[in-house]
Amino acid sequence: MPKTFTTKRMVEFSDTDMAGIMHFASFFHYMESVEHEFIRSLGLSIYTKIDGQPISFPRVAAKCDFKSPAMCEDVLDAELYISRIGRTSITYQINFSNGGKPVAHGEVTCVCCNIYHDRPPESIPLPQEVVDLLSPYVAAA
Amino acid sequence: MPKTFTTKRMVEFSDTDMAGIMHFASFFHYMESVEHEFIRSLGLSIYTKIDGQPISFPRVAAKCDFKSPAMCEDVLDAELYISRIGRTSITYQINFSNGGKPVAHGEVTCVCCNIYHDRPPESIPLPQEVVDLLSPYVAAA
Amino acid sequence: MPKTFTTKRMVEFSDTDMAGIMHFASFFHYMESVEHEFIRSLGLSIYTKIDGQPISFPRVAAKCDFKSPAMCEDVLDAELYISRIGRTSITYQINFSNGGKPVAHGEVTCVCCNIYHDRPPESIPLPQEVVDLLSPYVAAA
Amino acid sequence: MPKTFTTKRMVEFSDTDMAGIMHFASFFHYMESVEHEFIRSLGLSIYTKIDGQPISFPRVAAKCDFKSPAMCEDVLDAELYISRIGRTSITYQINFSNGGKPVAHGEVTCVCCNIYHDRPPESIPLPQEVVDLLSPYVAAA
Repeated sequence: MPKTFTTKRMVEFSDTDMAGIMHFASFFHYMESVEHEFIRSLGLSIYTKIDGQPISFPRVAAKCDFKSPAMCEDVLDAELYISRIGRTSITYQINFSNGGKPVAHGEVTCVCCNIYHDRPPESIPLPQEVVDLLSPYVAAA
Repeated sequence: MPKTFTTKRMVEFSDTDMAGIMHFASFFHYMESVEHEFIRSLGLSIYTKIDGQPISFPRVAAKCDFKSPAMCEDVLDAELYISRIGRTSITYQINFSNGGKPVAHGEVTCVCCNIYHDRPPESIPLPQEVVDLLSPYVAAA
Repeated sequence: MPKTFTTKRMVEFSDTDMAGIMHFASFFHYMESVEHEFIRSLGLSIYTKIDGQPISFPRVAAKCDFKSPAMCEDVLDAELYISRIGRTSITYQINFSNGGKPVAHGEVTCVCCNIYHDRPPESIPLPQEVVDLLSPYVAAA
Repeated sequence: MPKTFTTKRMVEFSDTDMAGIMHFASFFHYMESVEHEFIRSLGLSIYTKIDGQPISFPRVAAKCDFKSPAMCEDVLDAELYISRIGRTSITYQINFSNGGKPVAHGEVTCVCCNIYHDRPPESIPLPQEVVDLLSPYVAAA
């Protein structure tokens, strides 16, 4: 059984919109925030250096299905696991629910990149020590 | 040939992140902003009343593939068309490019809903006058 | 001695900008989030009903002085107290610091309002039970 | 008579909150966006190099008074002028109004800085060519 990482996020007032519900784009912020909390739980940082060179994880794809609206001050349960680790990429699955009721299901694929300040990010193979830390969270296909 | 709706969006400083590029979640804001500009171009409003009841278009799904980074002050070309009109839903395709170079491709499905202030949104069939206005923008499968 | 409310906020990646620091506008989001956490700590909600009518606290003024930059994953200490309670308004002072080093000092004045969905918010006197809960946090002039 | 810079901003749906009005923190984003449009109108960029070193304009203070609520799809008139140019700093005043009705008045002070990627921004004197471009917009005290 793969491990999952679980945490919580409370819906902030500023993430609601005039329809009275959490704005859809805010889910992508919450997804990233959960992913980063997961990364830190492994003892890693979301913006670190390897061999003296800054690396980060820009996204190449993100999607979210919205199942039921989230309201201000709702405390959402977030559950994260990994559906795929590629040579340079990681694909996360993130479920948000509220008291057991599905709220949203997101998927994000990010790519390990060297970050330069004068040219676009450049993908690099995931360091083996990162792969080793992530592997317990990979769900079998 | 279906019609497309085209407009532009400049990348704001506040939409960049410490990796020096436009943050991925901001694309979902830009997608919604383009969709709403399209809705207004048809003479509609994004938050209107039909038979005295407020309607709006909450999203049920959104995704985006990121092809190349967008930088601060880049002026992106946005092109929108419709891939599907359902009984209650509309699926938009939105391409962002920069001088012909693909930057991002997004897809959003939203559902026509009555908006109440004391309970969740409730889906309703798309009004025929809305369908008529949208139809020229539907791409054949 | 007035009481203060203290909490923490970690700087999210998406709150940074291409200058590599937390974007100034994000401090206003953090200030509101801290204020709302304070309100909940009193057993209140930030969007409640009094006599069946929704009330909320729109801002009439907000400001922030930025003392030193905050970086991604910094864990900021936030300290809130009240500098003034008026007939309809509350003025909060919020300090953010990092390991004792001042980061930002914000001030927000919000007004107790009835919220209607078809016309602008309308100010009302602060309910006495709210004043009683807030009073221990008021600093002498 | 000092010159003013004028432009417009439409209130986006995602800038509203569940109280049905534009969220207060979004005004700070709009203020920055207007300031940056002004900078570009002078032929400058908001993130440029002088003598090969990146410079930018972090904020040291920002405030806004909110006069009347702005609603979704309102088209706000924005008017910017400069109240003070210091050795390293610029203080902007920005008014937002709607059909002549005051909506918000903001003030932002930013400081010309060298931007490094491994240490905090460092203030530098405003280049004379920047001062020359800004001077026509300075209001007499």
